[in-house]
Amino acid sequence: MAELLSQDEIEARLGELDGWSRDGEAISKTYDRGDFVGSVEFVRRIVEPAEEMGHHPDLSISWSEVAVAITTHSAGGLTANDFELASRIDRL
Amino acid sequence: MAELLSQDEIEARLGELDGWSRDGEAISKTYDRGDFVGSVEFVRRIVEPAEEMGHHPDLSISWSEVAVAITTHSAGGLTANDFELASRIDRL
Repeated sequence: MAELLSQDEIEARLGELDGWSRDGEAISKTYDRGDFVGSVEFVRRIVEPAEEMGHHPDLSISWSEVAVAITTHSAGGLTANDFELASRIDRL
Repeated sequence: MAELLSQDEIEARLGELDGWSRDGEAISKTYDRGDFVGSVEFVRRIVEPAEEMGHHPDLSISWSEVAVAITTHSAGGLTANDFELASRIDRL
């Protein structure tokens, strides 16, 4: 099982990402993809890294906005996997 | 602009749908699509009726579950369009 990150590690890794913030036991970011079609297309592209990693974000679509939240439920908090998935989604 | 439905009309139309419920100024339903890929595929298929109607639901994906919420923001509540979109999503 992936190990939980310490508060210091979480802060350090958040500092390496752009636009992600702590949201309880998860990290989250909201992307603007222009319109509804752009939002759904972005969500579709998240499938590949999520399936490759076996790690799946929670996603909310509201017109042009896609909110992404990532946590490791099995570990009960944030692990290195969460930050790797966040980084891969940012690179889409 | 689409007209707001009365409480009686809303109740009657909800009675004609399967699994939809009132959620404040919206109607909502949660679908189980088996896994993350199934959820994203379902969301992708919602694009066609949403674009055809020019009416877009709010969507949340959490692994196999897709929560759909529909309202008419411009009217400040529920209109016939909301129930038509709900019915079309049910038929996907």
